[in-house]
Amino acid sequence: MSDETLILNEDQLRARVYLDAALIDVIENAFALLAAGDVVMPPVLSMHLPDVNGEVDVKTAYVPGLPGFAVKISPGFFDNPSRGLPSTSGLMVVLSAETGRVRAVLLDNGYLTDLRTAAAGGVAARHLARADAARVAIFGAGLQARMQLQALRLVRPITEVAIWARDPDKARALAAELDGEGGLSVRAEADPQQAAAGADIIVTTTPASQPILRAEWLQPGQHVTAMGSDQPGKNELDPLCLDRADLYVADRLSQTQAMGELRAALLAGLFAPPLDFPELGQIISGAAPGRTGTDQITIADLTGTGIQDTAIASHVLTIFSQG
Amino acid sequence: MSDETLILNEDQLRARVYLDAALIDVIENAFALLAAGDVVMPPVLSMHLPDVNGEVDVKTAYVPGLPGFAVKISPGFFDNPSRGLPSTSGLMVVLSAETGRVRAVLLDNGYLTDLRTAAAGGVAARHLARADAARVAIFGAGLQARMQLQALRLVRPITEVAIWARDPDKARALAAELDGEGGLSVRAEADPQQAAAGADIIVTTTPASQPILRAEWLQPGQHVTAMGSDQPGKNELDPLCLDRADLYVADRLSQTQAMGELRAALLAGLFAPPLDFPELGQIISGAAPGRTGTDQITIADLTGTGIQDTAIASHVLTIFSQG
Repeated sequence: MSDETLILNEDQLRARVYLDAALIDVIENAFALLAAGDVVMPPVLSMHLPDVNGEVDVKTAYVPGLPGFAVKISPGFFDNPSRGLPSTSGLMVVLSAETGRVRAVLLDNGYLTDLRTAAAGGVAARHLARADAARVAIFGAGLQARMQLQALRLVRPITEVAIWARDPDKARALAAELDGEGGLSVRAEADPQQAAAGADIIVTTTPASQPILRAEWLQPGQHVTAMGSDQPGKNELDPLCLDRADLYVADRLSQTQAMGELRAALLAGLFAPPLDFPELGQIISGAAPGRTGTDQITIADLTGTGIQDTAIASHVLTIFSQG
Repeated sequence: MSDETLILNEDQLRARVYLDAALIDVIENAFALLAAGDVVMPPVLSMHLPDVNGEVDVKTAYVPGLPGFAVKISPGFFDNPSRGLPSTSGLMVVLSAETGRVRAVLLDNGYLTDLRTAAAGGVAARHLARADAARVAIFGAGLQARMQLQALRLVRPITEVAIWARDPDKARALAAELDGEGGLSVRAEADPQQAAAGADIIVTTTPASQPILRAEWLQPGQHVTAMGSDQPGKNELDPLCLDRADLYVADRLSQTQAMGELRAALLAGLFAPPLDFPELGQIISGAAPGRTGTDQITIADLTGTGIQDTAIASHVLTIFSQG
């Protein structure tokens, strides 16, 4: 048997795959394909390991026409930081869409997930934030706080950033690090309402289990991307935010109602099935309207989808096939 | 980042991992652990790809106390044989039970699945077939037909084999190949009832979607292992076989009712929840009685469980850590 499988480690991937405009386009196209309806994307396999304060998610999506599809294994082990390791890790396996055989193993330790997650925030802002959106509020001060900001800068003329985090020291440290970079003005805010006030785009990037953004803080014209919730039990937005918004958009409705912000809003009795909220891909493809006025409040609820994994894995194979 | 991940390809695995008595013990122990109740084994993620006549299953199981656990990706692409490729392939990923990080990638193309599947047949026979079982009927003439027989020979004093297959040429070819090997007497039977008659153990190894073993053919003292069904829609045993048996044993009841022989029996209205059939692990651990008389008819319904994957993957790491 020949070894036909491409194996790439994290260093190799970090050296050649970035959060750039090409990746935003790749992820945008993936959502459009999802809306077209031929994608096979089974529910996430989710395994909870309370013994070791861990969880493992497996996501996959098959897209007709692509030569391969990814199966992604994402462990999150939350005692890792005390060992000097990141909580999340994992890999992506790329299978041939023709034969099912393993074409590639991408030992990214979660790097590609970080990229495709941030890119989805860029795609959401491209389609839902005002074209002139320049002021950003970021809730949270971790890796996705940085990366979501980086993604926004690829799609909107960002100039001003306010950072709020539960730990004000972390918010201050991140603001100090980013201030001045590429002309950005970045400040930390101790009060989340102050951070949100005047922002054109608010991105929540936390693992909060209680809302951190109140509906009464929202202002006309704002776009909110909530990307921290990806498990039942997480909740960043006051459920009334969804009620207040002119447009709520799910990355995948079947997921956001089970593990996104929509879950809490359903529990609060604000909405009831049948739900007719659009998905991001429908807005990208024009099947549903996006923002229709500069005063609208829009919300994107991003839980992370298998099609993003298949899309970035295909992107990786394209990059590495170019020698 | 250091490359701490062990990567083994199919050739390396075939050179050092076999269907032997040690593996039977490993798989037996895995089922006993499953019965002990602390195992976390989520439902199988099953993805159907009708466009390409394919499917992908993902199985996993976390076993407290083991240093790692496997996530297995099993593609089956049924047009592969026309391309000169086997239908099934795939790999196992071993994650650290402590940190979730990827410890190993076993690029086995399904070899380890073949082994652990056959080993489960050996375990079932060890606990359910009569101690003096010597005569075997195998339904099917593929890889598992050979391997199930090999597993039986590790646990019972097998001397005589009858092989029936839908394609009589294949049955004849396999019988000719195996006859005389290690003193075995092997014949092909054109009539499945003739193959079953007088057998102490009957093993069905086919992808049949209509029953191939009739209840009225069963004789006192026989043990039946049905291991072909692993998807809803497959069915090897006449549902009345389960009614006729003195003892029906599932590898995992939640799986056999969804995709094993029990599914068809439930559809036929022969049983209704709550189901109180024992699982194989309960019999191994003594929590439920196994065969209690030489005249009993016993059935083992094997759909394949994530814990078998975790068990064989751990076995592989042990073998390869021995240098």
